[in-house]
Amino acid sequence: MSHAPSAALSRRHASLRDALARSGLDALVVTALPNVLYLTNFTGSSGIVVIDRERLQFITDFRYVSALAASRGAAHECPGLDVVVVDGSYDATLASTIAPLEGRRVGFEAAHLTVARHQWLTATIGSAAAANRSGGGSAAELVPTDGVVERLRVRKDDYEIATVREAARRLSGVARAVVAGVRRGRTERDTATDIERLLRDAGFDKPAFDTIVASGPNAALPHARPTERTITEGDLVVLDFGGVYDSYCVDLTRTVAVGTAAPRVRTVYDAVRRAHDNAIAAVAPGRSRFDIDAAARDTLAAAGLGEAFGHGTGHGLGIEVHEEPRVSRRRPDVDASGESVAAGMIFTIEPGAYLPGWGGVRIEDDVLVTETGVEVLTDVATELVEI
Amino acid sequence: MSHAPSAALSRRHASLRDALARSGLDALVVTALPNVLYLTNFTGSSGIVVIDRERLQFITDFRYVSALAASRGAAHECPGLDVVVVDGSYDATLASTIAPLEGRRVGFEAAHLTVARHQWLTATIGSAAAANRSGGGSAAELVPTDGVVERLRVRKDDYEIATVREAARRLSGVARAVVAGVRRGRTERDTATDIERLLRDAGFDKPAFDTIVASGPNAALPHARPTERTITEGDLVVLDFGGVYDSYCVDLTRTVAVGTAAPRVRTVYDAVRRAHDNAIAAVAPGRSRFDIDAAARDTLAAAGLGEAFGHGTGHGLGIEVHEEPRVSRRRPDVDASGESVAAGMIFTIEPGAYLPGWGGVRIEDDVLVTETGVEVLTDVATELVEI
Repeated sequence: MSHAPSAALSRRHASLRDALARSGLDALVVTALPNVLYLTNFTGSSGIVVIDRERLQFITDFRYVSALAASRGAAHECPGLDVVVVDGSYDATLASTIAPLEGRRVGFEAAHLTVARHQWLTATIGSAAAANRSGGGSAAELVPTDGVVERLRVRKDDYEIATVREAARRLSGVARAVVAGVRRGRTERDTATDIERLLRDAGFDKPAFDTIVASGPNAALPHARPTERTITEGDLVVLDFGGVYDSYCVDLTRTVAVGTAAPRVRTVYDAVRRAHDNAIAAVAPGRSRFDIDAAARDTLAAAGLGEAFGHGTGHGLGIEVHEEPRVSRRRPDVDASGESVAAGMIFTIEPGAYLPGWGGVRIEDDVLVTETGVEVLTDVATELVEI
Repeated sequence: MSHAPSAALSRRHASLRDALARSGLDALVVTALPNVLYLTNFTGSSGIVVIDRERLQFITDFRYVSALAASRGAAHECPGLDVVVVDGSYDATLASTIAPLEGRRVGFEAAHLTVARHQWLTATIGSAAAANRSGGGSAAELVPTDGVVERLRVRKDDYEIATVREAARRLSGVARAVVAGVRRGRTERDTATDIERLLRDAGFDKPAFDTIVASGPNAALPHARPTERTITEGDLVVLDFGGVYDSYCVDLTRTVAVGTAAPRVRTVYDAVRRAHDNAIAAVAPGRSRFDIDAAARDTLAAAGLGEAFGHGTGHGLGIEVHEEPRVSRRRPDVDASGESVAAGMIFTIEPGAYLPGWGGVRIEDDVLVTETGVEVLTDVATELVEI
């Protein structure tokens, strides 16, 4: 179980019910686990929420029943949770949970339900209604929805902000130890193992993603995996790591130079650092996320590194390590969601420059949009460290 | 990149093309990443295969282009791979890759494509064909398929068997160290951290799932998460852990007693151990997976522990830590896949008994179905250890 207080969960349920009413939906089937966690504090690997105007039914299997019972009466108990234990399969239980909602508009998460499950559910609910036709039944209508719960999650509530702030504070401590601990002669893989040990020791449940330690030419790969390559004099080493703390993700990158940095290293590093600082300076409520991206991108382009920065400037953090908002170039084909950032949003700022064969630099911090501007949640110096 | 030799990949492509021909499909869109890895050795987090009678197109983004180029000429290079770099979004690139297949039957993985993506693809391909109608175009027909690549994956090839055998050998070494290292006064969480360190040191890329250390009453929860509870005299401690080694998963559980086992502990442990041994003895090519499950289940029922064993006896292992075959009770509603096990299948045998408030026992090993019977891949003694 996660630890959002019961009152916070009640507010989330109320906001969701408001959103359903605005969309003309009688109920919503929530199959995305991060959304399930957000609504219930449930951290298991299988569970489905069916929420309507009055009830919050939670379908799970016998493995989790004891854990749910143990949370009863706790400060983080999910209010109004009506547990339905799986009988047969999850989908069969879901179908029999939806079936009584005959004639109602029941939303489902189109981005989180597969075609196979949707086909099966539609057929099963239809058959149940047909069998019941003498009683006047007509099947529930399954209505595709897009990002209903995600739109609530994008602005963090007080509990979430406090949790991510604490997680970022701990990650900053880890980052200082990581930077101080980079050693010539150690492999990338050993260094990654050290980082994950530091994450555990700092109280993280697990890494938020596969730790990246990319040295020398490998640093030119934005998503390199740690190899058996030995860290060597003259390398740049990109260290990108994060942790999950009480179900929330934080993420940080530092790049260090092994030995005295060559002039080119310093030039590239300083350009990325200016891009990072300019992007953070561009964060405030009401600002466009594309403009925040441009603040980083234009800085690198002005330094002749426009082509070397191929990814977005940042991504939202929360229950998932990649969520809304995306701080990226404007791309009309994929940018359906809102443009402005708002107080309570938490995201990374992580410009980089990648030069094939030479190496790369990335500097990443986590920021919170406040009512008046920005709070940098991770707190680690960004000047170039030569080890 | 994973390391299946090019010749193995070629055989997988040929088998898949045979399967497509038998299903009357001209092409298949593969969106499930484990299936993509199986066909290409690609281990990144984003990639789509479009395979037809002649070509194997692989859609990925700029982040992975250098890594793919680096594998060219290597012994594990994917033969015939035609890289399509994402332009705009993955879905837009997929649509333009499919669009030229006008009038063809193009399968997609119904269990691995969401309703939202399917709706968008169908609409986009339809519009492209309509725009091309003067040229006689009619859109490709998207045909739902179920488990086409998974059915190939269920029987492992020589490369996969060798890889899992080596992974299991390493996991057995970890297990011996884990059992020897359980200590009174340590928390479940610390013990889990130790296990994950041992996994790394043994050459695993990462844990295959969240490590379970469940002590005392927590051992009654089959999927407990490690807590701050201290391991205490009189506890049973369930230790369930696994690792990913060169993209393949292995999984093992041992249960140890802290101090001298009480008579009831010994009775329950011995029943689970007999269930484990009887299930393994029931494994041979041609045997029903339901009968293998029954060998464990009936043993526990005869010991009065039928109600205490609520989960299946085992699950397939491979690129995923839970895959086919499921060794479980026969359930007509979810058992569409084949019943018999066959040479080359690899799965766990993991009966348990869970008694709420008292504790629990689980014993798990990994087995390979051979041409003549069974090979136990994990090799660790199963008698009750009292520490």
